Amino acid sequence: MSVRELVVLGTASQAPTRQRNHNGYLLRWDGVGLLFDPGEGVQRQMVHAGVSAHDVDRVCLTHFHGDHCLGVPGLVQRLSLDRVPQQVVAHYPASGAEYFHRMRYAAPFHEVADLREEPVEREGALATGSFGTIEARRLDHRIDAFGYRLVEPDGHRMLPAELSRLDIAGPDVGVLQREGVLHHRGRRVLLDEVSEPRLGQRFAFVMDTRLCDGAFALAEGADLLVIESTFLDRDADLARDYGHLTAAQAARVAAESGVRRLVLTHFSGRYPDPRPFHDEAAEVFGGDIVVAEDLMRVPVPRRR
Amino acid sequence: MSVRELVVLGTASQAPTRQRNHNGYLLRWDGVGLLFDPGEGVQRQMVHAGVSAHDVDRVCLTHFHGDHCLGVPGLVQRLSLDRVPQQVVAHYPASGAEYFHRMRYAAPFHEVADLREEPVEREGALATGSFGTIEARRLDHRIDAFGYRLVEPDGHRMLPAELSRLDIAGPDVGVLQREGVLHHRGRRVLLDEVSEPRLGQRFAFVMDTRLCDGAFALAEGADLLVIESTFLDRDADLARDYGHLTAAQAARVAAESGVRRLVLTHFSGRYPDPRPFHDEAAEVFGGDIVVAEDLMRVPVPRRR
Repeated sequence: MSVRELVVLGTASQAPTRQRNHNGYLLRWDGVGLLFDPGEGVQRQMVHAGVSAHDVDRVCLTHFHGDHCLGVPGLVQRLSLDRVPQQVVAHYPASGAEYFHRMRYAAPFHEVADLREEPVEREGALATGSFGTIEARRLDHRIDAFGYRLVEPDGHRMLPAELSRLDIAGPDVGVLQREGVLHHRGRRVLLDEVSEPRLGQRFAFVMDTRLCDGAFALAEGADLLVIESTFLDRDADLARDYGHLTAAQAARVAAESGVRRLVLTHFSGRYPDPRPFHDEAAEVFGGDIVVAEDLMRVPVPRRR
Repeated sequence: MSVRELVVLGTASQAPTRQRNHNGYLLRWDGVGLLFDPGEGVQRQMVHAGVSAHDVDRVCLTHFHGDHCLGVPGLVQRLSLDRVPQQVVAHYPASGAEYFHRMRYAAPFHEVADLREEPVEREGALATGSFGTIEARRLDHRIDAFGYRLVEPDGHRMLPAELSRLDIAGPDVGVLQREGVLHHRGRRVLLDEVSEPRLGQRFAFVMDTRLCDGAFALAEGADLLVIESTFLDRDADLARDYGHLTAAQAARVAAESGVRRLVLTHFSGRYPDPRPFHDEAAEVFGGDIVVAEDLMRVPVPRRR
């Protein structure tokens, strides 16, 4: 299944509103699902969005403030109640392991799901999968926080006309892709002769933080960047005091990092109208800007 | 403020649906709020219902299955974030104290609210308040479970015509009400001469249980009974196996206990149409029947 999209499950910050649930973002990356920062109510938001616990392969928490993690107890129980067969891996800042365990065992249930914890101890690569590599970088919030980044390796797109010209087909194509070379009818065919480069895609998830090196490193070259913009720039003092970004600062991260599509989210309830977030970001960033709404689906932009 | 009503925050059982959140029931009893079984998402449901953490004085958990308690972490944090000034008392089965503590401290926050735990160790009266007495009785579920009952003492309704005839007014009325007698213009006036009896009201909250003595004892003479009816009678075997009631069984509790208004809730997601719950109950119980929907407000019926 070749779908790469973000399913937005919640977009509020500290307090939910009628329109916005606490956080929750399911990245569907071909057949794999990565759930970021499940806030309270995420299991019901998944029902509304038409996705299920079966769609979750990995859970990534940026930090342990309630609006980013209180969906964990319900999610963990849902994995078992729905008898999700695949292993689900959970990443979270290692310093908060005790909180994760309290939530994992918040109430009695029969745990049959295979939930494997892989706490984030330090910056760097966490794991590889069909999505490429998942990496973590430190953010600058009021408590220990990490952002996440997916890096798909660059690859090759086969050129059917060239394959046909050289009469290469079937398993030979796989050999060429894997090994970069094929001995075919007395000739040495190189992968580059019958393909063009295909750039790997990059996804970045940056939650509660002040501007910091980690935010820029995560966003570098991202096709899709999901980033908090709790405040507008007129409240930059509040943003700094509480360890958050303004829409203009989030847009600056996107602009300086060559991001293609920018998703703003995690809005303070003090702003009833979301349009100024778009306008403020658009003054700084020239790419696609999406002001997230609950239950929206945002495609990862196609490769150029 | 003389409002006595149930604010329904959620009506699902194990799995939430598009229409039904996990449990949550705020009983507004004059100026006091009692929140029963806050399931995941209850803080957002409160926003939808137009009530706030400031309206909560007491939290009562029947048992520690997730659909009845996973709203505790968010609720507890909300009390502090919103700087709720009053003391809030929490009742829960004492055997689950460890679960309550995990949820109370599920994630780091600055706890400034005054949350006082009063675990339920045994059946009987738990506390008194302006609502009268709150009592607990054991239920028969798969884990330790208690139901709750509010009993307002009987009182007197003053008769203005009689007061006027004897020229009793102002503070003298309060003396009569408190002391039952007033020496007035050389005469001994008894409270009964200038009032009529006013029956205290009763409210009962019966969640996950098989038919048991506790359910009947809780419901006895209740003006409003909120009771689970997870299944229809055709699935009575499932109800028994999982420790639940059918709509007919819930109605039997109401009928045999002299209940006035019956609120059915906690429906299994296997029944898309709620109407059969009403019809099945109506064959057994002749009083008011309400098939609960999220965000409904159900008045406690006026005294007869």
